Amino acid sequence: MNVGDRHFRTIWLSDDGRSVEIIDQRWLPHEFRIEKLVTVAGIATAIRDMWVRGAPLIGVTAAYGVAMQMTDDASDEALDTVWEILHDTRPTAINLRWALDEMRRFLRPLPLGERAAAAYRRANEIADEDVGLNRAIGENGLAIIKDIAARKQPGETVNILTHCNAGWLATVDYGTATSPIYLAVEAGIPVHVYVDETRPRNQGAQLTAWEMAGHGVPHTLIVDNAGGHLMQRGAIDMVIVGTDRTTADGDVCNKIGTYLKALAAADNDVPFYVALPSPTIDWTVGDGLAEIPIEERSGDEVSLVWGKTASGKIAQVRVSPEATPAANPAFDVTPARLVTGLITERGIAKASREGLKAMFPERG
Amino acid sequence: MNVGDRHFRTIWLSDDGRSVEIIDQRWLPHEFRIEKLVTVAGIATAIRDMWVRGAPLIGVTAAYGVAMQMTDDASDEALDTVWEILHDTRPTAINLRWALDEMRRFLRPLPLGERAAAAYRRANEIADEDVGLNRAIGENGLAIIKDIAARKQPGETVNILTHCNAGWLATVDYGTATSPIYLAVEAGIPVHVYVDETRPRNQGAQLTAWEMAGHGVPHTLIVDNAGGHLMQRGAIDMVIVGTDRTTADGDVCNKIGTYLKALAAADNDVPFYVALPSPTIDWTVGDGLAEIPIEERSGDEVSLVWGKTASGKIAQVRVSPEATPAANPAFDVTPARLVTGLITERGIAKASREGLKAMFPERG
Repeated sequence: MNVGDRHFRTIWLSDDGRSVEIIDQRWLPHEFRIEKLVTVAGIATAIRDMWVRGAPLIGVTAAYGVAMQMTDDASDEALDTVWEILHDTRPTAINLRWALDEMRRFLRPLPLGERAAAAYRRANEIADEDVGLNRAIGENGLAIIKDIAARKQPGETVNILTHCNAGWLATVDYGTATSPIYLAVEAGIPVHVYVDETRPRNQGAQLTAWEMAGHGVPHTLIVDNAGGHLMQRGAIDMVIVGTDRTTADGDVCNKIGTYLKALAAADNDVPFYVALPSPTIDWTVGDGLAEIPIEERSGDEVSLVWGKTASGKIAQVRVSPEATPAANPAFDVTPARLVTGLITERGIAKASREGLKAMFPERG
Repeated sequence: MNVGDRHFRTIWLSDDGRSVEIIDQRWLPHEFRIEKLVTVAGIATAIRDMWVRGAPLIGVTAAYGVAMQMTDDASDEALDTVWEILHDTRPTAINLRWALDEMRRFLRPLPLGERAAAAYRRANEIADEDVGLNRAIGENGLAIIKDIAARKQPGETVNILTHCNAGWLATVDYGTATSPIYLAVEAGIPVHVYVDETRPRNQGAQLTAWEMAGHGVPHTLIVDNAGGHLMQRGAIDMVIVGTDRTTADGDVCNKIGTYLKALAAADNDVPFYVALPSPTIDWTVGDGLAEIPIEERSGDEVSLVWGKTASGKIAQVRVSPEATPAANPAFDVTPARLVTGLITERGIAKASREGLKAMFPERG
């Protein structure tokens, strides 16, 4: 989407046809930096240390990592090794696994000498497919926003709550949860986005707010605590979030705190939608609460907050006593019963095994 | 309670018998500073700018402010003026109004020459009454903790979730929500406290965590987003929060985000208790959602986070783009239906008009 008046994707092949360039998201919203990644180790660092983040973008980045490996060593062993190295960087991300599996499946039958070129071709395709998926999600979600707008006075704003960043920065372009919003703006529907800051890493404050500001979407930042109150007061027309992994039963694993917003939405009859490209569906898992392991990240992410000082320096400040330990579960699971619908590239599915089967009969 | 090995209250009369000393809570947890307040203007600043905070402590501080005014000018007009000045500092705080009304009611019948001394006497009494109320709340809440401990294996920890700071720093001593915890520690029951950081002002991270560390209570800091997940996983045995104002119907107005934790508690069958001294009950209001105005504070509290830099300086960092506006509702209302019980100084009341009437028949 736009950064001011110029269009960007989050990742693109360099002119050298071998390395890739990314928006280094660690510095947003304070600095807009582009980094060139030239080795598998660089790709692994970029994924693990969250220079890039978001399920779809992680998958595409990993696909380019496999391609880089193929230019150095295109053997089956190298293919297995790069699969392992990159999979270990963010084990919760189902798209990462999907992209790595897809690259291996695609490359293994090919002669060694053809693998590198084919790998870049396939990685480029995966990137373009992501854009296509997200655009389709956007069109399906746009129908919901249009319905809400149609029930309002002409010109009245549709208020949408988001959590974390399932924006274009989490994908190659458009985003998942934000795609319907960008298409609503394109369609001239007045929208306003309440952006959950999304502690501890503040992806909402740092990334979603930056996206909205860059593309000119009216928005307001709020703390994660505020969404329930806004729903009680009728200030939210719908919630749209992304997901790191949705189960075959429709349970939604997403950034920590999503479950609390889903509870508030249910309590206030606010529709709660999850936007997801189908590679995010984990068909091997049914009960998300029982079966999805939740990544425990460092407590320092809770105790130390990054930001920009008055003098313009990027710095971190400690918000709690040195003697206080912190726990940092990174995701939670929203049970399917709290989800109004799953906005996929094919349409809006009910969050249930039957709903997903009906939408993806080839996977049921 | 203890700060390391020394006992403190949050406010006490200075040796000069006229000014008061307070723990200046703006610098916690990084610096432990004591300030002397010598004028009504100083008292108003300390309340408005949250050098002191927490409903009961605000009330006591205001009572001393009235006493200071009486030493300068003990007229009825001065009594009305100081009521107005101090009431305007934090209009949501029901205890503030209660303490100001009580001081005026008590002083008005007295001859002008006796008012100053009587006012200090009454302010000291209000402070001591607060300690007594909180101790009684602690004893009533302790019974609940004992019940939970009795259902566990011997020595197994009782896990308690708190939101914001309803600790001794919010009162004169013991706190409200923390009082049962401190008494459980005194009684040798193994407890562990999950401390919600409580954005935007981080009172949990800055104050509750500091209290727990200072008094030696095992605790873990979490982001506000994490509580629902922990409840889903069975990691929380009970929630205890404070309240700024509870209605005659049992609706609970408390720090923003409390409602979300109450929803999660109800969804996971975790008991959700609110600890409150009876002056926090607003008998004039029934429906909290419809009738309680919610304070909107500056968006800067959301965009800028205070803390300590690596070099030990207290500084603030901006976490969001300059172009992004922020909204900052400071409280929300938890409907009575989500509250397991109200822990008062007299006992545990059902969160309903009938429950409160039965506990406080003289007010019904």
